[in-house]
Amino acid sequence: MDKIKAGVVGATGYAGSEICRLLFSHPQAEVAAISSVSFEGMALSQVYPAYLGLQDMVCGTQEEVVEKCDVIFAALPHGLSQELAAECDRLGKCFIDMGADFRLEDEDAYKEWYGGEYTDKALHEKAVYGLPEFFREKIRGQKLIANPGCYTTAAPLALGPALEQGLIETAGIVCDCKSGVTGAGRKPVQSNHYPELNESFTAYKVASHRHTPEIEQTLSKLCGQDVKVTFVPHLLPINRGILATCYGRLKEGVTEEQLWQAYHARYDGEFFVRLLEKGQVPNVKNVHYTNFCDVSLFVDGRTGTFIALSAIDNMGKGAAGQAVQNMNLSFGLEETAGLVLLPPAF
Amino acid sequence: MDKIKAGVVGATGYAGSEICRLLFSHPQAEVAAISSVSFEGMALSQVYPAYLGLQDMVCGTQEEVVEKCDVIFAALPHGLSQELAAECDRLGKCFIDMGADFRLEDEDAYKEWYGGEYTDKALHEKAVYGLPEFFREKIRGQKLIANPGCYTTAAPLALGPALEQGLIETAGIVCDCKSGVTGAGRKPVQSNHYPELNESFTAYKVASHRHTPEIEQTLSKLCGQDVKVTFVPHLLPINRGILATCYGRLKEGVTEEQLWQAYHARYDGEFFVRLLEKGQVPNVKNVHYTNFCDVSLFVDGRTGTFIALSAIDNMGKGAAGQAVQNMNLSFGLEETAGLVLLPPAF
Amino acid sequence: MDKIKAGVVGATGYAGSEICRLLFSHPQAEVAAISSVSFEGMALSQVYPAYLGLQDMVCGTQEEVVEKCDVIFAALPHGLSQELAAECDRLGKCFIDMGADFRLEDEDAYKEWYGGEYTDKALHEKAVYGLPEFFREKIRGQKLIANPGCYTTAAPLALGPALEQGLIETAGIVCDCKSGVTGAGRKPVQSNHYPELNESFTAYKVASHRHTPEIEQTLSKLCGQDVKVTFVPHLLPINRGILATCYGRLKEGVTEEQLWQAYHARYDGEFFVRLLEKGQVPNVKNVHYTNFCDVSLFVDGRTGTFIALSAIDNMGKGAAGQAVQNMNLSFGLEETAGLVLLPPAF
Amino acid sequence: MDKIKAGVVGATGYAGSEICRLLFSHPQAEVAAISSVSFEGMALSQVYPAYLGLQDMVCGTQEEVVEKCDVIFAALPHGLSQELAAECDRLGKCFIDMGADFRLEDEDAYKEWYGGEYTDKALHEKAVYGLPEFFREKIRGQKLIANPGCYTTAAPLALGPALEQGLIETAGIVCDCKSGVTGAGRKPVQSNHYPELNESFTAYKVASHRHTPEIEQTLSKLCGQDVKVTFVPHLLPINRGILATCYGRLKEGVTEEQLWQAYHARYDGEFFVRLLEKGQVPNVKNVHYTNFCDVSLFVDGRTGTFIALSAIDNMGKGAAGQAVQNMNLSFGLEETAGLVLLPPAF
Repeated sequence: MDKIKAGVVGATGYAGSEICRLLFSHPQAEVAAISSVSFEGMALSQVYPAYLGLQDMVCGTQEEVVEKCDVIFAALPHGLSQELAAECDRLGKCFIDMGADFRLEDEDAYKEWYGGEYTDKALHEKAVYGLPEFFREKIRGQKLIANPGCYTTAAPLALGPALEQGLIETAGIVCDCKSGVTGAGRKPVQSNHYPELNESFTAYKVASHRHTPEIEQTLSKLCGQDVKVTFVPHLLPINRGILATCYGRLKEGVTEEQLWQAYHARYDGEFFVRLLEKGQVPNVKNVHYTNFCDVSLFVDGRTGTFIALSAIDNMGKGAAGQAVQNMNLSFGLEETAGLVLLPPAF
Repeated sequence: MDKIKAGVVGATGYAGSEICRLLFSHPQAEVAAISSVSFEGMALSQVYPAYLGLQDMVCGTQEEVVEKCDVIFAALPHGLSQELAAECDRLGKCFIDMGADFRLEDEDAYKEWYGGEYTDKALHEKAVYGLPEFFREKIRGQKLIANPGCYTTAAPLALGPALEQGLIETAGIVCDCKSGVTGAGRKPVQSNHYPELNESFTAYKVASHRHTPEIEQTLSKLCGQDVKVTFVPHLLPINRGILATCYGRLKEGVTEEQLWQAYHARYDGEFFVRLLEKGQVPNVKNVHYTNFCDVSLFVDGRTGTFIALSAIDNMGKGAAGQAVQNMNLSFGLEETAGLVLLPPAF
Repeated sequence: MDKIKAGVVGATGYAGSEICRLLFSHPQAEVAAISSVSFEGMALSQVYPAYLGLQDMVCGTQEEVVEKCDVIFAALPHGLSQELAAECDRLGKCFIDMGADFRLEDEDAYKEWYGGEYTDKALHEKAVYGLPEFFREKIRGQKLIANPGCYTTAAPLALGPALEQGLIETAGIVCDCKSGVTGAGRKPVQSNHYPELNESFTAYKVASHRHTPEIEQTLSKLCGQDVKVTFVPHLLPINRGILATCYGRLKEGVTEEQLWQAYHARYDGEFFVRLLEKGQVPNVKNVHYTNFCDVSLFVDGRTGTFIALSAIDNMGKGAAGQAVQNMNLSFGLEETAGLVLLPPAF
Repeated sequence: MDKIKAGVVGATGYAGSEICRLLFSHPQAEVAAISSVSFEGMALSQVYPAYLGLQDMVCGTQEEVVEKCDVIFAALPHGLSQELAAECDRLGKCFIDMGADFRLEDEDAYKEWYGGEYTDKALHEKAVYGLPEFFREKIRGQKLIANPGCYTTAAPLALGPALEQGLIETAGIVCDCKSGVTGAGRKPVQSNHYPELNESFTAYKVASHRHTPEIEQTLSKLCGQDVKVTFVPHLLPINRGILATCYGRLKEGVTEEQLWQAYHARYDGEFFVRLLEKGQVPNVKNVHYTNFCDVSLFVDGRTGTFIALSAIDNMGKGAAGQAVQNMNLSFGLEETAGLVLLPPAF
């Protein structure tokens, strides 16, 4: 069989280049075209010299990508994906959006948090939300996939089973999340200038980050009720990784045993979720360069609090890895294809 | 006036050496003797070559420190401070304990969390808890001072005024704290070996850290009710600093304005607490090498959650800085003496 | 064809675990047994949780490794490899030594720098030095391979062609090298304790590092004359990577053009040496997790100095990657098998 | 006595803000005015929140600084200092230039390396080069001082005495230097964006850095002969510090003992140069936040090579610290005033 021709729009950003990296090891897909507004005409290996001699493809235009490819991964500023998605839809091509334009079902929420509008409502109805562990069957074979954000992958994977099984209250949930710097993109800014970020640690967009409604959308679907969460992101002086420390109030009478059972029932068949042994704690280091989400649970009996922790690589399961997983589902491939590499341990 | 003769037992540990550093700039005190079990006979500058030519004092014995000094700072494993404190008490010398032996008023809590006993209950009744911003008047002139732990300084300074004024519920409090590595001490261990910790991030002792009852003791005193908290510490791959992100449930009808007023009323006169402007977020970088605690407040109106953040240097306000502040109070000096240095900004 | 059964003695060290990682992606080899003195009976994924679910093999004994495997990679303290090598020799198995026991042809040099003796001189004569870019034909099909050290790979690859072609003087060579911390091993020591190493930089073993005679041995072979070098290693506060900045005196009349030609002639057919474009400088970041060696050249016309720079991953081309490359040569496989992965760019 | 009124032009850059920090602890000087083109009207503590409550001075104009101050420290792009220096000269004010405009005595060298001209040659003749350990007597009482660059402080302090005493050859000197990132300034650029620089290490401007002629000027003066050096700078992923590893050819018959004697003779009376014990190696960590330069010597008897290492804080002795030292010399103060603080050891 011919390899699937994959293209990346915005290939020189962190997520885009990581998709190219993963496809390099994919047995059934290959990068056929890439584009970049800032680096058009330059080889990807000029932007990332680590790729030299292995991936020297030259950045072309968005149009070339659409023309040459069966699947288009788009890493674009919000608002700009809609038009491109529409074109792919017309051409019958698979479109996987790394941005936020198709993630929220509620247009009002999109307006409130992103300030834009849905230009083509029918198109939005075709879109599926690409978090396979929760919505796998809806993703299979689909051609318009909204790839989740990083925090919005980590926090729901930590809390999902507890809410799904009604073991914690829907009110009072706190998601205290910590992310590596690549999540903020490749563009140099003062706050991420090395001497400023090095040896620093802080929270940002406290209770006002755009991923809030997306986390809530997923959790609400899982439990069938309206869930609101308090979400506080923090910036870690490391390159990659998200740790989500999530807190919920245990429902009366719920035991730690029940929680572990619910999580095992939910995740034991999930290749990319590694439920740790009791007492173990996820560490971002252990998921670096992978599509894994490590999860662990704790109960604070003194206060009746449930604590779920998850760790992902924000560029892996939080972006490029999940996008490839979604491509696999869309094209009917083995879901893990191209994603099973033993990661560096240090 | 002669300078106060200060001594440090356990001077070669991180907290001990930092006390020496601060006393170097103190106008009314000086290091007169130091001791170290591991490095007896060696100069402090052999252990810390940064001190070369400035602080070359040789480590002697604990006995020498007690004999030569007016104030003894002790950084010892828990359980070992009690005997030394008793001796200082007999000799009428000021004893400032960096360890946990005198922090908890409730001996049962000490037994539960530390596994030891109070060998001299009368002595424990003399001890005062050295968190000056909350218990200043009790500390003045006292000679047996339990210096608080690092997390137990950061979290109560974040939450204190809200509880004191009854603006948040006493139930449901979460303290999600993140600490630099120096808090784990100078002894090499696998988890803090450079290649293992670098680019890593994880939680540890989830809802089971020994600082829990100490945080609760302070908060309970401030509001006059029994407070229980869920406390989850995390380890940051940076040397210094603690960021405490604390969550509480707003009481019905309480406004953000009321909260800011309560904090201003409480902290505007406190030199070492810098209440940031609305919207600003504390960053551990900004308190490095200082005795400051930066505090900020947020209200998540969507969920009725109060969020208080604080940043301290775990070696400064979280250990050595606060110890010097307590010494100043004990000896009737200007409280800020030796602690007002413009810190490096990068 | 059945996969080659590979075994690792000392699998829980950094080099050993990295060999396991590389073999995971190898199309013609697999890890069949591993051993560890410190972690016998534990799974590799308990030591390195990143491997969880992918490489959970349990550490057995050295004897089991020898029994079950066709090729044995040994990461042992110097002096201990000789006996194991002899046993593999008797059994006709391939032995790839990550240590120094078989690297130096001159036993006197070994005695001087390592303090040991060659217990079986006939065995030492069978050993080949596994730096394929210079000694490929001697390695093919051999079964006792001394895998080079990290510095001793980086510096000769930088300087080799210039000496080989007689373009620089054999006297006055300086190798100023900088290494990441994993080169110092996994055992926690004070100097590599996170807070001590973080934000630090220093030289060590100035002009007295054991890799000196090994560098000289390779360079001397390449130019057919006795070469002595001044070698100063430095420790970088990063996990992986070596940058070698090497200086030599240009011979009278030699032009920069001649140097580039010599390097192109030598390296254009070498997959794992990437000769950069003029003006580009190697960066350890660009070879992370790879078996590449990036090389660049400069001429300081003002002083008649030749400057060659090379970057490798000390765990890749400097240890595990090169060991797999040597295995490939020993077994007659494609030399690049298992070693062509697009590395993460950040 | 009234305190000296000091002003900083370009106060929000790294060097400028560090001067403000040092003057905060100075017993005889104070910051009276600061300016910044980018942040005019903003408080220094808005740019550096670490300074909050301690140094909240608002940035004004360059004119205000000149008007209000006795001494003006200028951190300006090259070419722009000349006019300001001329004005200070007319007004009889002390001008300490952090830039390169007055460092090179040879205008042709300035033209070649910086591309500008000396607009007022008489003014340039008044300028003194502010490296006190070598040119102290020329600096005292002077009012136009060219503060040396960072590399140009570190390398000459390492090599100076050996050249001064004629113990090494003037040809064949190599300065392999490594610098922390603050040396590259506060402006965000791609190469110093956190995810790009983190875990990286590379050389830059190989044998073509502008500090080359300045190093040569100092060394030539010390030995009375024309010295040329090969200078290769590298960028360390740390905030502060320079390590210079310098190599020279020992003259026939020179012993290590002679070298140590020369260095002791030269530096034993220098407060800011700490000649380490034989076998010790300077580490940038040990000079962080100080005005010290740690120096050590090695002889490679196998190759006849002299190795001198030095470590400074590029923002301390390499910029702001030395500038304050020069101010002290200019105003006849104790040379160490404001510069004797025990630095943090971690």
